[in-house]
Amino acid sequence: MASNINAVIGQSGGPTAVINQSLVGVIEGLYKQSGVGKILGSKHGVRGILNSDFIELNDLDSGLLEQVAQTPSSALGSTRDKPDEEYCKKLFESFRKHSVGYFYYIGGNDSADTARIISEMAISSGYPLRVYHVPKTIDNDLRTTDHCPGYGSAARFVALGLMGDDLDNRSLKGVKIDVIMGRDAGWLTAASVLARQQEDDGPHLIYVPEVDFSEDKFLGDIDRIYTKLGRCVIAASEGIRYKVGDKHSLVTEKAVQGGEVDAHGNKQLSGTGALGDYLSDLVKNKLGPIIAERTTAKLRVRADTFGYLQRSFPTIVSQSDAHEARICGRMAVEYSMTAPNGLASGSVAIKRISEAPYKVDFFPTALTNVARQTKPLDAAWVKNGCDIGNEFILYAKGLVGPLPIPGKLF
Amino acid sequence: MASNINAVIGQSGGPTAVINQSLVGVIEGLYKQSGVGKILGSKHGVRGILNSDFIELNDLDSGLLEQVAQTPSSALGSTRDKPDEEYCKKLFESFRKHSVGYFYYIGGNDSADTARIISEMAISSGYPLRVYHVPKTIDNDLRTTDHCPGYGSAARFVALGLMGDDLDNRSLKGVKIDVIMGRDAGWLTAASVLARQQEDDGPHLIYVPEVDFSEDKFLGDIDRIYTKLGRCVIAASEGIRYKVGDKHSLVTEKAVQGGEVDAHGNKQLSGTGALGDYLSDLVKNKLGPIIAERTTAKLRVRADTFGYLQRSFPTIVSQSDAHEARICGRMAVEYSMTAPNGLASGSVAIKRISEAPYKVDFFPTALTNVARQTKPLDAAWVKNGCDIGNEFILYAKGLVGPLPIPGKLF
Repeated sequence: MASNINAVIGQSGGPTAVINQSLVGVIEGLYKQSGVGKILGSKHGVRGILNSDFIELNDLDSGLLEQVAQTPSSALGSTRDKPDEEYCKKLFESFRKHSVGYFYYIGGNDSADTARIISEMAISSGYPLRVYHVPKTIDNDLRTTDHCPGYGSAARFVALGLMGDDLDNRSLKGVKIDVIMGRDAGWLTAASVLARQQEDDGPHLIYVPEVDFSEDKFLGDIDRIYTKLGRCVIAASEGIRYKVGDKHSLVTEKAVQGGEVDAHGNKQLSGTGALGDYLSDLVKNKLGPIIAERTTAKLRVRADTFGYLQRSFPTIVSQSDAHEARICGRMAVEYSMTAPNGLASGSVAIKRISEAPYKVDFFPTALTNVARQTKPLDAAWVKNGCDIGNEFILYAKGLVGPLPIPGKLF
Repeated sequence: MASNINAVIGQSGGPTAVINQSLVGVIEGLYKQSGVGKILGSKHGVRGILNSDFIELNDLDSGLLEQVAQTPSSALGSTRDKPDEEYCKKLFESFRKHSVGYFYYIGGNDSADTARIISEMAISSGYPLRVYHVPKTIDNDLRTTDHCPGYGSAARFVALGLMGDDLDNRSLKGVKIDVIMGRDAGWLTAASVLARQQEDDGPHLIYVPEVDFSEDKFLGDIDRIYTKLGRCVIAASEGIRYKVGDKHSLVTEKAVQGGEVDAHGNKQLSGTGALGDYLSDLVKNKLGPIIAERTTAKLRVRADTFGYLQRSFPTIVSQSDAHEARICGRMAVEYSMTAPNGLASGSVAIKRISEAPYKVDFFPTALTNVARQTKPLDAAWVKNGCDIGNEFILYAKGLVGPLPIPGKLF
């Protein structure tokens, strides 16, 4: 006889290349549980719970599941909604109505906070609900876990993109600026350093939000590299910021007019080329005349913004990332059933066991250890304000996987 | 005894993911010729000839050659120089000085024109020189040949990029605009249609330079799709243009201030996000209020410019494209030795033999059949001014190779 305790799975926030691996991991985990009745996929995160907009995920063909696992972006749809008290009451009405006893929410720190709020409301209202957050973010900025599923694949895209772009710049020279995602943390931008295999390879300069941005230093750095190599490739985070007094202001705010803010109070930094164009114009106007006078050649400056390609490009996936994302989904189910260390609700985290061979383990942690605050890149890993050190390379290479080695003739 | 007739190879114009396959094809071809002495790689195209800046390519290890072949961008470096009479005189001085009897130039229509000028100057000055152009361009706009090496791989990047971006847009909705390379021809933008495997898949709208752009039609098209699907993914060429009287003006010129012009008179359209941001603002400002009134939700609009990633991303390569690029290099050497149909100088072209199985053959053609003018996309393949028909899909799918099939749950 089928159980009448049902489970809900949702996906939230920005998609990744492996978020569906976690979804399929949760589904596989639930298939092994006899105490679970309906497995309900909530369409577009909490919004689907609010509107009772579910898909039944019981008895899916394993071939389709594997195909979904290998497909980037959120197969259940996503949302940027952040439930408040009123919103949460409606979620509980839906949970009660559908006899939901297990809720798995795959997302970043905002989603962990949503899970925390729902979990706390369930406890205070005496409704028996186990809530497990499955970590997901290309930004890699969740606390407690060593790294986040989704990061390795996006970092792989960034490293490959910079590698190709450096080869491109090697052939036609000039200054090239690549703007990389990452609102508050430089993890993804830092991954560009993995493209550098030989001393004169780009990226030659790397700017992350963890270091205050100075236009004068930026121009001086470029001038130094360009004078030495006759070219310069730069990776800059979309979140780079000036320090003005004791406050920070985003460089992109200078570049964008009337930018958007989402429900979480986050400024829209992606889906626009404004920052790249602003930095490009800065180099053209300030450094162009100086270099033109010195070399008698016009300075070629270009900027690209990698944009949404970073998080959803099919076939560019780190194998370890895909594998871990899947396991995180399975562990969320296991932890929700066994409540290890008393954690009937929580988040799945990753612990690094060794660097070489790269090996990890998984553990449960409280939702309060993941929700809301983010984890910046270690400031000691940033060198001279414009480069990333070997500590990061050691940390990141297992997450990104082996990269091709370019063949060069000179 | 080694011959004292030497060969020069150069690469020109914008790099591609497979231009080094052609380079290695030429090198391999020359290794089989006993009548050739030194094989000189000219650094940065004609500029290397001008400055006697060569690398000897004889006796390279086959492992290194294969590694170079699989590396994107131009291993010899590239140039945008277009030789005039004075420049050509200097090239001949260099050719005479270095006893060069064979010149292979890998590039697009501008490079074919450079090859033509040099070839004609050699004939008129009585200098025995055989010049073969090896076709290369992601734009696919060369005349005579069925398609161009470099196109299939860039088209694969665009198709995969749009596929991932459509999945992304499916999860978070809104209007997404992707700006694709292609100054004068819509071939690369058209390839975005290959991402569409089911009826409601994006891209839902495709805009190419071959059709006059109208902002009113653009907004009306988006409104129609958005009303039907609640989302809309758009692929737009960087070269879309308005018709004003009997003249055309680029949309990007309205968006870019003080844009650059290169030595060939080409306007800089790449390396800036201005067009995407302009179109994005247009949709936000004109369509946003109308849709907000109808749906009570704020219209989410984002734009990405795929930029240089399209032409130099490592590992995103069409297998048929890589293979054909290699063969084109080898055939250039063979034709230069045998002068078929009296073509002691010329260009290598591709003829399509069959669609299924996809099969091609190669033939030599006069440089005048390739130089200067470009080949637009067949206007009959564009449907309703905003879509690409099945004729193109049939043409392109063999060039791009098999694509993944996304797994979907709804």
